[in-house]
Amino acid sequence: MNPSATPVAQVLESYRAAVHAKDVEAFVALYDADVQVFDMWGQWSLSGIAAWRAMVGEWFGSLGTETVRVDIEGLRVEAGQDVSAAHAFLTFTGVSAQGKELRSMTNRLTMVFRRTGAGWKIAHEHTSAPIDHATLKAILQRAPAV
Amino acid sequence: MNPSATPVAQVLESYRAAVHAKDVEAFVALYDADVQVFDMWGQWSLSGIAAWRAMVGEWFGSLGTETVRVDIEGLRVEAGQDVSAAHAFLTFTGVSAQGKELRSMTNRLTMVFRRTGAGWKIAHEHTSAPIDHATLKAILQRAPAV
Repeated sequence: MNPSATPVAQVLESYRAAVHAKDVEAFVALYDADVQVFDMWGQWSLSGIAAWRAMVGEWFGSLGTETVRVDIEGLRVEAGQDVSAAHAFLTFTGVSAQGKELRSMTNRLTMVFRRTGAGWKIAHEHTSAPIDHATLKAILQRAPAV
Repeated sequence: MNPSATPVAQVLESYRAAVHAKDVEAFVALYDADVQVFDMWGQWSLSGIAAWRAMVGEWFGSLGTETVRVDIEGLRVEAGQDVSAAHAFLTFTGVSAQGKELRSMTNRLTMVFRRTGAGWKIAHEHTSAPIDHATLKAILQRAPAV
């Protein structure tokens, strides 16, 4: 990867670590205060860090003793001076306290980063799954070859 | 809007015009040769301008005498020196040759732009609709208040 992509890749690593630790504060710290998220589930958009913090608090709180492993594939970074972007396929795997994989789901992720005085922050995030045209249902498993 | 957002907004205007004119060449000219698209329908990703040209050719070719009007709401631009991004809600309305509105569907759109010798080009595009958690079905109409 181009060295200029490193700061963005580091934010993604911090994202993985925060999800695995279910650490709301570490997660929220990756985002800009006026972030706007096009999240995959239920709503058209979430605006501002308070709404995003509420979503992630609910997510992490729902996990009980499970943890979530995030695997990143196909990462591509557009590294800029003051704005950067990244997109990838993220697979979220639920793992029991005993280390058993319980379920798995893949998303498409796009993040837009703005360079601030406190480092690179996520200003916009968009997650989705492709939609089957015939059934209008989300496709949540990605075939390895695609 | 910040004046630095103008070049990106101009690409979006050209996108609207190319869709309305069903002009494959004008549409394709907005994109970088190695564009990667996370399109809403059916596939996880489309890589490279040839795959994207094939998709848009099929779309425009399927329209017969209909035209498509694109309405853009909630546009936000992250304007950078060499990389920029934009996101918005796009409503696509099919209009008959007689001017009658036939159907309408809203998408969430994120575009990432790279500044090249030939101007700002779309290097990545991500379109989606939110997914209802209970049914796993795409939500294709956006309530005005959201």
